[in-house]
Amino acid sequence: MSSNPAYELLAAKLAAKGLSIDEIKGRLKTQCIETPSWGYADSGTRFGSFKQPGAAISIAEKLADAGQVHQFTGVAPKVAMHVLWDLPDDDALQSVPAAAAAAGVRIGSINPNVFQDQEYKLGSFCHHDAEVRRKAIDHSLFCLDVAKAVDSDVISFWLADGTNYPGQDSFIARKHRLQEGFAEVYAAMPPEMLMLVEYKFFEPAFYHTDLCDWGQSLLLCRHLGPQAKVLVDLGHHAQGVNIEHIVATLLDEGMLGGFHFNNRKYGDDDLTCGAINPYEFYLIYNELAAAEEDSRLRCRVEYMIDQSHNIKLKIPAMIQTVMTIQAAYAKALCVDRAELAAAREAGDTQAAELVLVDAYDTDVRPLLAVVRAEMGLDPDPLKAYFASGYQETIESERGFRQGRGLGS
Amino acid sequence: MSSNPAYELLAAKLAAKGLSIDEIKGRLKTQCIETPSWGYADSGTRFGSFKQPGAAISIAEKLADAGQVHQFTGVAPKVAMHVLWDLPDDDALQSVPAAAAAAGVRIGSINPNVFQDQEYKLGSFCHHDAEVRRKAIDHSLFCLDVAKAVDSDVISFWLADGTNYPGQDSFIARKHRLQEGFAEVYAAMPPEMLMLVEYKFFEPAFYHTDLCDWGQSLLLCRHLGPQAKVLVDLGHHAQGVNIEHIVATLLDEGMLGGFHFNNRKYGDDDLTCGAINPYEFYLIYNELAAAEEDSRLRCRVEYMIDQSHNIKLKIPAMIQTVMTIQAAYAKALCVDRAELAAAREAGDTQAAELVLVDAYDTDVRPLLAVVRAEMGLDPDPLKAYFASGYQETIESERGFRQGRGLGS
Amino acid sequence: MSSNPAYELLAAKLAAKGLSIDEIKGRLKTQCIETPSWGYADSGTRFGSFKQPGAAISIAEKLADAGQVHQFTGVAPKVAMHVLWDLPDDDALQSVPAAAAAAGVRIGSINPNVFQDQEYKLGSFCHHDAEVRRKAIDHSLFCLDVAKAVDSDVISFWLADGTNYPGQDSFIARKHRLQEGFAEVYAAMPPEMLMLVEYKFFEPAFYHTDLCDWGQSLLLCRHLGPQAKVLVDLGHHAQGVNIEHIVATLLDEGMLGGFHFNNRKYGDDDLTCGAINPYEFYLIYNELAAAEEDSRLRCRVEYMIDQSHNIKLKIPAMIQTVMTIQAAYAKALCVDRAELAAAREAGDTQAAELVLVDAYDTDVRPLLAVVRAEMGLDPDPLKAYFASGYQETIESERGFRQGRGLGS
Amino acid sequence: MSSNPAYELLAAKLAAKGLSIDEIKGRLKTQCIETPSWGYADSGTRFGSFKQPGAAISIAEKLADAGQVHQFTGVAPKVAMHVLWDLPDDDALQSVPAAAAAAGVRIGSINPNVFQDQEYKLGSFCHHDAEVRRKAIDHSLFCLDVAKAVDSDVISFWLADGTNYPGQDSFIARKHRLQEGFAEVYAAMPPEMLMLVEYKFFEPAFYHTDLCDWGQSLLLCRHLGPQAKVLVDLGHHAQGVNIEHIVATLLDEGMLGGFHFNNRKYGDDDLTCGAINPYEFYLIYNELAAAEEDSRLRCRVEYMIDQSHNIKLKIPAMIQTVMTIQAAYAKALCVDRAELAAAREAGDTQAAELVLVDAYDTDVRPLLAVVRAEMGLDPDPLKAYFASGYQETIESERGFRQGRGLGS
Repeated sequence: MSSNPAYELLAAKLAAKGLSIDEIKGRLKTQCIETPSWGYADSGTRFGSFKQPGAAISIAEKLADAGQVHQFTGVAPKVAMHVLWDLPDDDALQSVPAAAAAAGVRIGSINPNVFQDQEYKLGSFCHHDAEVRRKAIDHSLFCLDVAKAVDSDVISFWLADGTNYPGQDSFIARKHRLQEGFAEVYAAMPPEMLMLVEYKFFEPAFYHTDLCDWGQSLLLCRHLGPQAKVLVDLGHHAQGVNIEHIVATLLDEGMLGGFHFNNRKYGDDDLTCGAINPYEFYLIYNELAAAEEDSRLRCRVEYMIDQSHNIKLKIPAMIQTVMTIQAAYAKALCVDRAELAAAREAGDTQAAELVLVDAYDTDVRPLLAVVRAEMGLDPDPLKAYFASGYQETIESERGFRQGRGLGS
Repeated sequence: MSSNPAYELLAAKLAAKGLSIDEIKGRLKTQCIETPSWGYADSGTRFGSFKQPGAAISIAEKLADAGQVHQFTGVAPKVAMHVLWDLPDDDALQSVPAAAAAAGVRIGSINPNVFQDQEYKLGSFCHHDAEVRRKAIDHSLFCLDVAKAVDSDVISFWLADGTNYPGQDSFIARKHRLQEGFAEVYAAMPPEMLMLVEYKFFEPAFYHTDLCDWGQSLLLCRHLGPQAKVLVDLGHHAQGVNIEHIVATLLDEGMLGGFHFNNRKYGDDDLTCGAINPYEFYLIYNELAAAEEDSRLRCRVEYMIDQSHNIKLKIPAMIQTVMTIQAAYAKALCVDRAELAAAREAGDTQAAELVLVDAYDTDVRPLLAVVRAEMGLDPDPLKAYFASGYQETIESERGFRQGRGLGS
Repeated sequence: MSSNPAYELLAAKLAAKGLSIDEIKGRLKTQCIETPSWGYADSGTRFGSFKQPGAAISIAEKLADAGQVHQFTGVAPKVAMHVLWDLPDDDALQSVPAAAAAAGVRIGSINPNVFQDQEYKLGSFCHHDAEVRRKAIDHSLFCLDVAKAVDSDVISFWLADGTNYPGQDSFIARKHRLQEGFAEVYAAMPPEMLMLVEYKFFEPAFYHTDLCDWGQSLLLCRHLGPQAKVLVDLGHHAQGVNIEHIVATLLDEGMLGGFHFNNRKYGDDDLTCGAINPYEFYLIYNELAAAEEDSRLRCRVEYMIDQSHNIKLKIPAMIQTVMTIQAAYAKALCVDRAELAAAREAGDTQAAELVLVDAYDTDVRPLLAVVRAEMGLDPDPLKAYFASGYQETIESERGFRQGRGLGS
Repeated sequence: MSSNPAYELLAAKLAAKGLSIDEIKGRLKTQCIETPSWGYADSGTRFGSFKQPGAAISIAEKLADAGQVHQFTGVAPKVAMHVLWDLPDDDALQSVPAAAAAAGVRIGSINPNVFQDQEYKLGSFCHHDAEVRRKAIDHSLFCLDVAKAVDSDVISFWLADGTNYPGQDSFIARKHRLQEGFAEVYAAMPPEMLMLVEYKFFEPAFYHTDLCDWGQSLLLCRHLGPQAKVLVDLGHHAQGVNIEHIVATLLDEGMLGGFHFNNRKYGDDDLTCGAINPYEFYLIYNELAAAEEDSRLRCRVEYMIDQSHNIKLKIPAMIQTVMTIQAAYAKALCVDRAELAAAREAGDTQAAELVLVDAYDTDVRPLLAVVRAEMGLDPDPLKAYFASGYQETIESERGFRQGRGLGS
């Protein structure tokens, strides 16, 4: 055996399946995960927000923190921006390119906020009052300018629109307003830009959500045009829904645009990805990995983290999350697809399942350690981050502060 | 006051809202509800079936029993047929037109069964084996012949297809097989025929269902053509899903084709309609009643009951169900739509809600009693049925027997 | 007919069932509903709080507003206090008795807050650190003093304790800490005081809640002693749970202490009571009304509203809620219990169900109007409130302000 | 490195944690899992049962098949019997001891059936009719005799009792009947016998289940006495419920009596254990493994499989299930409890979680292979079973047949 027996054992196992470990490592090295600027700031629930020492409040701090995650993992070069929380003024916007460059990251998706201002009490794009809709549209158009200014080509919409009481508003009238408002924003997009349309089945509206499921998002995107695609947030489904099936369906329809990775046990809990059901997350990645190898499926998919891990430390939790995503992808790459296809063709349910289980049960940490080493990184990003002193520095320099954003 | 003070009070109230009680009565008199042949037969759960004396086993008996429901309610002239359970042989098929005529009913939707035979263990239209798919397609084509023979213009599909274990089969391969098989059936339909495509999010497949939600059914229908529409079964959604929102969306998209009315508390419980949440059922009818008055929404909607009320007597439970549906429609017709629109336009959530609540809280039984009297019916169909002696007759003549069908 | 034909019709119907309308009216007049001080203040979700003009911020204002609800409904004489939000200092506490008297109300339950302070990030009574537990216990003991000062004999606990991640803490260690801390508070209670122990199955902790269901609350109460009873909040159950069954069980065990009335569609949505499933609410009241007539069941039950109706106007929504509760109780009182018992004894499922449905379908608004008139109140409390000018006055005098409390 | 490098690597890792691999292996070797006789027979859903060639129909065949599972895994020496399905007559009962001995297994729990006969349409122990209750009690008393005859000391109750419609029966009356009937059975138990009381929150009753959750079972057991304990079936909870928390609570209360292992995605799907959320299953085993090391917690826990894996081959699916359970236990034994306790004490959520994740991510298959080898077994039980020829033999000798039991 070599000096890295665990890796060698894994390599031998993969070779026995006819899988190329070099190809697997290559795909792992080019994985690209976007972290959210708001994941570095304090967050909470309606019952309160627990502040962390060192939590970021300015966009410069958020980018610097995101830079740490990328520095230690090597696969998180992009940062999602939340226009309202990150850019209080024009100065902040001007500062972004330099701050991103300094942090070693670039800007990913631009996220409008059309839910927080008082006018949005009864909705934004779906509001019965044309003035409120105008405000939401104008903010979205402004976000297109922001995207241009920071060199982003993705605008990502989550609407909080919905109603709390039966009868409160007309479902159909709201649907028409939604289509009309988005059409105006869509028409203003530059040709290379992608519009992501998220859905969520409850909260903060509690009786109905205008974009409640993938079907609603797909209808809206089809209404708009080819640059609009569906975004799947893992925490936004009813209990019992099979998310990997939705992912496969959207892939087949050419309508999958991106993900918000996180996990939940019941509601939109915003727990760190894989924390509750890591097998489900692996099954989702299994669809994605398979689609990468299927020439008929050609989706540009943005992989984004969207978590408000309220009680874990911000940067360490983000590093843990990136590592969890890497592991799910690595396991999905270890699936013996030829054997899987053969078992399915034979109608052998147990054998087909066990192909997936075998890859899942594989401990891919030695593989990822080698990948990191080959990328010039520490094999244990979390430990390396803690050893770097960055956490102590921000805790002592920044301390506890009041920021902007969800629950803060 | 007149001799019918309760009705007079209601009439005065409606007049005060500017609603025409004559128009309301007219709409109630033309309501048309289809009852299912299998609702007159024994049914059960996987833990057993509790037999009823007098439960129907032949198609002639089922039609006769359905005729009773129509005779006492006046709004249930159509009967859904289940090809496998109702038509054991050609003779049975030949006998249907005369039996229906004798019972005073006509045949509504034709329901293929592609789930019960041993070949369908791993699916029907989605099965990996082309031979099994061929069997499913051929049965469906046969059902088109049946429809012709019994003068039906609706074929209604519920697929049990799905998988029980992660990895068992390819979501995307199954989707393609589904589209291909249905396209063949669709192509064989006569031009005036409607194809209904039901969805269900779990059971009897437990990991994934190929047609799991309205989005999947809509995609399939759009793939097929304008004669294919979505069927909404009230018991086939995940918990917390807003069904009336789905109904409104399908209406707006011109894709609503029909309903399976029933109710559930958790699973697909097949309880009698309105038994668990009658307000939700009213809210669904509110969308339907509003759509009838909206010239932009032109859907042909089939209203069907699909229940396996295992422990209630078959015919009385069906009469109760028809009455419950009538009441929901009647209440929806009592909604003051002008006031509702005004409250919504003013953004007055509470006032808008209370318009719906006011109609719901109205006791419409006096109105329905008058409608029935004007139709030459007994104002209390359930009591009249029990008084008719039919129940005793079938109990003594038919007794307990072994039939065909769900859980029997 | 008399000058009130709708009431006369109802009276005749009840008489035909052998029910005494005088007894029913008497029970409706002595109904006693507690409204929450926090229900008059701004509230919101983690995504933001929408401020209302005139929303109360001081305890004096909250009591004054609660006084309006009682003035117009006659059955809401008590107000729940939230110690942290209502009593910023000793002066506020001193002012309460006079303010309550001026408003025509009295103080009901005292609600400690052991979830909002930064120390409670990982729990309060269940926290691993004895210092934090001490703080929670001391606050609770202080609440007992508050109760004494405002002449309240109910302390009502809702714990936000729980964990967000598997492994975060030991379930069993937390259970022991919980029992120990509560025992200390319990021991300090005066003999006539009632301790209510609420449960909630998710939020703000997302992996596990220490008091997640009625079973956990019951175990804790039994551990403490006879003055501790279970509080049922209607929004705190998993989907599909049968709440009326829990209520009946707690009644039979002598362990039901009180309610938090509200409604939800999916999460703990805090919608106004009866807004989503009014039939379920009626079924709960049916158990309560039946228990009142059963001498073996002797529970002192506190009926409290706990809603954060974020987008409806505070006082009007509270009046609507009180009226909804009255209607549910009134319908439950119209149930023909003798006929129900006979149907059950005969094993006639449909007949038994229809006894409940018949009472539910009855329009009890004429009855409640008469009850109000006999109590010297306007028959339409909501309309009367709007006509009173109070809402305009507080909107113009108070305007939009920043308060304390949930999401504000 | 030795000739088994994967095992050596794991051994080194465990040693570094201060864990004794010999102790771990010892505990794995004494693991004892009971398989259900009905798991070797055909099963299905209400929509149909798909027959397998070779499925067992007689108790002798079931025991022989269970013997295979034990022969290849070494940890499944016990078989649960279902009185109604397994023992059609006295002869069958007489034959059991010899048949079990021949198969190399012994009888575990005795499972009465008080749900299948026509009399139980409205319940068994909770039925309003004393005659039906008498039948259920008598059958249960007979099951005690059966237990004696087959040398079993566990009787395990699952009740299907419940109602389908609001109002159908009195919750409280049913609770009293339940307590009374069980008290009679309990009183007849020999002193060393354990009574297990299962709960289930829905199906086959759809409105309410008399024993719907752990709280109801616990109340009944406490009412009966120390020989009655709660049985947790993993598929019998509402969505979002934290099962490991329930397990810990029951352990702490001394009320945990046993498990029915399986998995589900939405309903009581009876999928093979760990098929949907293996991490949840590991977390449950983590509580059990921790409790084994806690001298204050002294529960006798019966570990039983209860699955109706309809579409997987019976014996192979059972072997897979046993292996999955072994793996969960093995991973739970690899948890570094000292480090976990330290992280919890420090309030370090992430570190505590990662202790559990680390053990879960460990590939324990090499360890289990060594354990099996040391037990004289093939390291790959499933492969060895397929190689043994038993499956082909039963398929050709038994073929497709009609049996007794769930859905058959």
